[in-house]
Amino acid sequence: MKILIVNGPNLDRLGKREVNIYGNMTLEEINNKISNHFKGKVEIDFFQSNEEGAIINTIAKAEEHYQAIVINPAAYSHYSIAILDSIRGVDIPVIEVHLSNIYSREQYRKNSVTAEGAIGVISGFGWQSYILAIEFLISKY
Amino acid sequence: MKILIVNGPNLDRLGKREVNIYGNMTLEEINNKISNHFKGKVEIDFFQSNEEGAIINTIAKAEEHYQAIVINPAAYSHYSIAILDSIRGVDIPVIEVHLSNIYSREQYRKNSVTAEGAIGVISGFGWQSYILAIEFLISKY
Amino acid sequence: MKILIVNGPNLDRLGKREVNIYGNMTLEEINNKISNHFKGKVEIDFFQSNEEGAIINTIAKAEEHYQAIVINPAAYSHYSIAILDSIRGVDIPVIEVHLSNIYSREQYRKNSVTAEGAIGVISGFGWQSYILAIEFLISKY
Amino acid sequence: MKILIVNGPNLDRLGKREVNIYGNMTLEEINNKISNHFKGKVEIDFFQSNEEGAIINTIAKAEEHYQAIVINPAAYSHYSIAILDSIRGVDIPVIEVHLSNIYSREQYRKNSVTAEGAIGVISGFGWQSYILAIEFLISKY
Amino acid sequence: MKILIVNGPNLDRLGKREVNIYGNMTLEEINNKISNHFKGKVEIDFFQSNEEGAIINTIAKAEEHYQAIVINPAAYSHYSIAILDSIRGVDIPVIEVHLSNIYSREQYRKNSVTAEGAIGVISGFGWQSYILAIEFLISKY
Amino acid sequence: MKILIVNGPNLDRLGKREVNIYGNMTLEEINNKISNHFKGKVEIDFFQSNEEGAIINTIAKAEEHYQAIVINPAAYSHYSIAILDSIRGVDIPVIEVHLSNIYSREQYRKNSVTAEGAIGVISGFGWQSYILAIEFLISKY
Amino acid sequence: MKILIVNGPNLDRLGKREVNIYGNMTLEEINNKISNHFKGKVEIDFFQSNEEGAIINTIAKAEEHYQAIVINPAAYSHYSIAILDSIRGVDIPVIEVHLSNIYSREQYRKNSVTAEGAIGVISGFGWQSYILAIEFLISKY
Amino acid sequence: MKILIVNGPNLDRLGKREVNIYGNMTLEEINNKISNHFKGKVEIDFFQSNEEGAIINTIAKAEEHYQAIVINPAAYSHYSIAILDSIRGVDIPVIEVHLSNIYSREQYRKNSVTAEGAIGVISGFGWQSYILAIEFLISKY
Amino acid sequence: MKILIVNGPNLDRLGKREVNIYGNMTLEEINNKISNHFKGKVEIDFFQSNEEGAIINTIAKAEEHYQAIVINPAAYSHYSIAILDSIRGVDIPVIEVHLSNIYSREQYRKNSVTAEGAIGVISGFGWQSYILAIEFLISKY
Amino acid sequence: MKILIVNGPNLDRLGKREVNIYGNMTLEEINNKISNHFKGKVEIDFFQSNEEGAIINTIAKAEEHYQAIVINPAAYSHYSIAILDSIRGVDIPVIEVHLSNIYSREQYRKNSVTAEGAIGVISGFGWQSYILAIEFLISKY
Amino acid sequence: MKILIVNGPNLDRLGKREVNIYGNMTLEEINNKISNHFKGKVEIDFFQSNEEGAIINTIAKAEEHYQAIVINPAAYSHYSIAILDSIRGVDIPVIEVHLSNIYSREQYRKNSVTAEGAIGVISGFGWQSYILAIEFLISKY
Amino acid sequence: MKILIVNGPNLDRLGKREVNIYGNMTLEEINNKISNHFKGKVEIDFFQSNEEGAIINTIAKAEEHYQAIVINPAAYSHYSIAILDSIRGVDIPVIEVHLSNIYSREQYRKNSVTAEGAIGVISGFGWQSYILAIEFLISKY
Repeated sequence: MKILIVNGPNLDRLGKREVNIYGNMTLEEINNKISNHFKGKVEIDFFQSNEEGAIINTIAKAEEHYQAIVINPAAYSHYSIAILDSIRGVDIPVIEVHLSNIYSREQYRKNSVTAEGAIGVISGFGWQSYILAIEFLISKY
Repeated sequence: MKILIVNGPNLDRLGKREVNIYGNMTLEEINNKISNHFKGKVEIDFFQSNEEGAIINTIAKAEEHYQAIVINPAAYSHYSIAILDSIRGVDIPVIEVHLSNIYSREQYRKNSVTAEGAIGVISGFGWQSYILAIEFLISKY
Repeated sequence: MKILIVNGPNLDRLGKREVNIYGNMTLEEINNKISNHFKGKVEIDFFQSNEEGAIINTIAKAEEHYQAIVINPAAYSHYSIAILDSIRGVDIPVIEVHLSNIYSREQYRKNSVTAEGAIGVISGFGWQSYILAIEFLISKY
Repeated sequence: MKILIVNGPNLDRLGKREVNIYGNMTLEEINNKISNHFKGKVEIDFFQSNEEGAIINTIAKAEEHYQAIVINPAAYSHYSIAILDSIRGVDIPVIEVHLSNIYSREQYRKNSVTAEGAIGVISGFGWQSYILAIEFLISKY
Repeated sequence: MKILIVNGPNLDRLGKREVNIYGNMTLEEINNKISNHFKGKVEIDFFQSNEEGAIINTIAKAEEHYQAIVINPAAYSHYSIAILDSIRGVDIPVIEVHLSNIYSREQYRKNSVTAEGAIGVISGFGWQSYILAIEFLISKY
Repeated sequence: MKILIVNGPNLDRLGKREVNIYGNMTLEEINNKISNHFKGKVEIDFFQSNEEGAIINTIAKAEEHYQAIVINPAAYSHYSIAILDSIRGVDIPVIEVHLSNIYSREQYRKNSVTAEGAIGVISGFGWQSYILAIEFLISKY
Repeated sequence: MKILIVNGPNLDRLGKREVNIYGNMTLEEINNKISNHFKGKVEIDFFQSNEEGAIINTIAKAEEHYQAIVINPAAYSHYSIAILDSIRGVDIPVIEVHLSNIYSREQYRKNSVTAEGAIGVISGFGWQSYILAIEFLISKY
Repeated sequence: MKILIVNGPNLDRLGKREVNIYGNMTLEEINNKISNHFKGKVEIDFFQSNEEGAIINTIAKAEEHYQAIVINPAAYSHYSIAILDSIRGVDIPVIEVHLSNIYSREQYRKNSVTAEGAIGVISGFGWQSYILAIEFLISKY
Repeated sequence: MKILIVNGPNLDRLGKREVNIYGNMTLEEINNKISNHFKGKVEIDFFQSNEEGAIINTIAKAEEHYQAIVINPAAYSHYSIAILDSIRGVDIPVIEVHLSNIYSREQYRKNSVTAEGAIGVISGFGWQSYILAIEFLISKY
Repeated sequence: MKILIVNGPNLDRLGKREVNIYGNMTLEEINNKISNHFKGKVEIDFFQSNEEGAIINTIAKAEEHYQAIVINPAAYSHYSIAILDSIRGVDIPVIEVHLSNIYSREQYRKNSVTAEGAIGVISGFGWQSYILAIEFLISKY
Repeated sequence: MKILIVNGPNLDRLGKREVNIYGNMTLEEINNKISNHFKGKVEIDFFQSNEEGAIINTIAKAEEHYQAIVINPAAYSHYSIAILDSIRGVDIPVIEVHLSNIYSREQYRKNSVTAEGAIGVISGFGWQSYILAIEFLISKY
Repeated sequence: MKILIVNGPNLDRLGKREVNIYGNMTLEEINNKISNHFKGKVEIDFFQSNEEGAIINTIAKAEEHYQAIVINPAAYSHYSIAILDSIRGVDIPVIEVHLSNIYSREQYRKNSVTAEGAIGVISGFGWQSYILAIEFLISKY
């Protein structure tokens, strides 16, 4: 089983920006944690981009190489109907994750446009949001 | 470690109502699956009520006997500020779970009032939403 | 044929409160009128509660003993997604009735959240709203 | 006692359009059913028009010849303040009926502007919505 | 193949009113242009009315004599649920056209209620909006 | 100078309906009062219809025979973009009048869609609203 | 009979500001025109202030010396509940006037908060809005 | 004189939850303070429940034994039309109190649905909100 | 201890305007009642103005001479962010009072912009709203 | 004459995603159909990108090489003010097309932000939406 | 060149109120800083008032004596259409400034009604907002 | 001191598009003007992109090489929460500038989502908006 983790805008800055909200672990450290956690169980690739279009390109092509996608669309969650459409356009399951609990932040972060296309959403568990998503994928598929 | 699972209105009817949305497993079957899954690792108690007040009473008292709460407030998620207040009123972590993905249903199910008080939300993974929540609690606390 | 009539909050106060809106007949008198009207034709039981949860419990269990429910959710009509879910969760027909015409009152009484789950709504005919609902049930089922 | 039934736009197309929502009985068949149902009890006339103005004309003149009106304003229910005003302008009771339950359809069908002027609303019982309305009128007036 | 063109309110005033928005060609001139354009290919009849009800009557009857309808509901586009219902009620394809681009005008002209029932919308090409609609119908049906 | 007075839906019922709001003078009495008031000064014709389309037809043709229009669109004021368009489509001045003060009634009567096309609005002076409108036309044109 | 004309903010700038909307007559010229028009018929005093409080003071005291008020609250029309309250607080009739047609301007000028307290509104007739208001007062009181 | 104090959801948790907002006095301590304050002057009973229905039951029955109610509906203030109806249904005066100033908190706490039925509201004075309410009742009734 | 009572627009008209809402006591009579009530206990000064700016000036300077302010901003409560800012700008406690219960009046009176800066709000107790506010100040400061 | 067709996000996935909405023809097949249809009449180039910025770049440069643009902004239609600005920034005509009828889909697809800059919109005719747009361009320019 | 600086409500309290938002410099100190900064280059007068009307008066008269206005309308920015109108009414350029960044504060401070009439807005630079505004005026006029 | 100027979508088209709003200077000319203005005082680099992601990339990296950012996010200001997050994610000051006054344009341009993360906003001064921003940075940092 191969899973692709897609990270959206500003997540490359983790550990450097707004550490009170997102924690002080860098994206690389999170990715390592995830890889180590599932070593031998499932193959995981990582993709991060600040570009809406690049994220769409990546989702579209993932179908050929992966059995599932775990996506953290970050700020794009709240307005990118284009990413929603790309999620709907693939036949593999997509799970949306968020580091922070989007329900306990600014009003404009409470809705997720992209989540409408995902099979489920995991929000608020820091880097472990990814772990939980992958555990579900392993158990289910 | 002891965890309390609180289930809200109509969840006692699982497996009997709207099976296309909620699946055909009964609440008892789900509870058994959860118990078995964590047998020997963590002690789990179950509470279900259709009454907003009973849910509040239960949350308030949980602090003395449990280290964490996993709650599925069901329909109350969308309007019960009273349950939100009770979640905020306890010092143990509370995770909100939903069987279905609330973002892909009716407009009035997209917002969760109660989630504002939870540490995180897991939505859309059927009975495994509970499993994931408890796995997080075990790994974190 | 057995029908259950479920009355929501404050309807136990009929004849005592806001008589200009709801008339001066008590709930007991209304129930008697209904019973007498259908004596020998259909068996009717009555349930009234001010508790959202008790109403949900009653709806859920009605399926086993009744062929239909006539419900006046009163104020809960306007916000109880939980009662809506319970109405949707039973396989017997549910008709929503209101004593007063909810369209000619305060703005917040014009929408009925619960009516979305009913087969139909009868609103504005005083105690005869119940009579009409039962007549329909007799003729149809 | 003479009652006028007023049917609004597209109801002349019953049985031909959207049969999954409105059933496959034609308006003529419904009218016959109603006439037969009340034969000997009450005199019933029928009027149907797709024109807002013609409906208003008919309501205004009904007062002279009828003791009550049963109206299904169909789509006009949702925006015709003009028909609302004409309903308010007659001294005989007006009951609004709908074939389908307007609460379980598109968002823009949930409110009825015209119902504000009616004594009550019966919605969701197919052609029997008319029967129930007339039964109330007979028992009450 | 026979096609009916239905024009809504104030379109009989074309060439006389607001020529900066709608151009200075009269409706008769437009109709002639359309007839000439498709002479020998398809038979086209024209109907114009300022009355909502007359438009509904015409749509309802068109089914018997025409294979398709091209409609410019003009101002009724923005509020006539009744015309929407009549469009939905016929089994022949209906295309909605507008002379001006409704998206670049007043806020209240941006939404088209009636377009929900059409197979497609062509807006902003002056009299050629009709030509394009008919060309599609010829090529498709 | 010739002026056309156009009265909208339900105004033919003046003196019969809702007399506490509109007074107990009939439309005929009002028309006579107006005619007498301006006898010898200006020629006045009267038109009343409950039909939106007929009102539009009348406005469109008025240009040829009249120098100005005084219109009371009644309930159509609040939603008829079609009448607004017809008002904008004539080159003679149009004044909108209302018997009652639309700002001190229901929320949905506060806005006038049609008034956007008029040169001015006179609202709240009973039958004298017409008198004032015509006096302005005489003094200005 | 004595009438007080109250003019609100920026009306002292008439003839100097935004002449395309308000015309190039000064307030003094308008006042003279009004005085001359009614010379010998009715006594008219003029008050203008840019201060909300001063306008309220003036309305409150007007009752003792005047039989009616004609007020142009200008921009305050759109938000001053305080002036609305002062209009409601006097027992003499108050008519609201506007130079321009407030319905054909910016969205935020379409509603008049203060008009709720007036007996009527005259809007769009330039300085003649005042003349019409006073003519009504003379004929009625 | 006998007064009933009704406390809504989570107020049994006072002194334990969110002490920065509600202070660190328990409900029992507050009740004692109130009792002591009015010892000998007025008889005071206390009722607290987290259940909407139990609060409604208590209000309904209070009429027989008490001359007034002081209610703190807590979170139910913001959505319980059912409690509003029960307040309206009793003939004794009801005063609504809040410990914190609801106007200086989250947006969804600014409106009080239940306050529409009270004679007045006292909000923001901690436990002394109750004292002030009772002092008013003593002085007035 | 010295307290300043600040009264906003139209309160100088008490006893003369809308007596069914505000009662028939004049402001002077109310002030006398308040002075007498607290004679010997606390020194009270009174200020009333219809001018938003004068109220702001008074609040700003109050800090030097008074230990607390009791303000009834009347209509300004609903839109004066400027008064809110001035309330926030003083270091002495400010209590907002209203004669009538603002929750049971027009929709636009339900929110109080200024209350966001007050320590608490007392609304609906007539002249005794002031008494209760001062009693709290005495007991607390 | 040279025309550029610009296709927005996820359109490269045509024929693979949501075939019930968009049909099972691939973008390449559609492009071939269009090329063949206009072979010898007009030169057509094709551009597709999932990147908002790349679409803007392409529109901006099109002016030099093409006489017109046909754009299907797909999901970007609903929020990209940036693409709207780029459409407004070129002096060649731009026509917006959609494969499906955006008026008969989700609420958030009904408005098109970008269409405000186009000369017209063609929506709902599948790949023929492009054909119609180009036919208009040929006939007009 | 002469410039008038107009400061709105509560700015006379600078350095005394909410110093965490507005800094601890007094208005006099700011004015001195500005005067010194431009000594010999441009003549600057200062006006501050808490009264909406006085601000309007000052703007209206400024035209005669000044070549430009720099205004900080403070709280009035968010609702004073009257000040907007007075800004539009003068022929000299008006620049709006704010000490704090209005976009990063409460929701109701994000919009500026008055800014619609200014040539530009400078917000968030403390007392230097004034400096920047004047520098622009010097360089441009 | 080194400052980075970041320009968003369509600003590369300055001088070519909508010159009545943005002037006829090209971006290169503006950049030259800025460079010349600050020659010898501060080092300025320029970046322009139509791509949201590229702008985010640039902001994120700027921290290492620059002491401040001046950004004109153009159309992205109104919806890019992603750029807002990137602005919040850097520790150097960011000033938002606009060529035109965004408050005097279309409704959807009045709010700036990105400005919430800036220290201040300068809007409406053409190319001098950049000059003012840099002057502030020089004087302050």
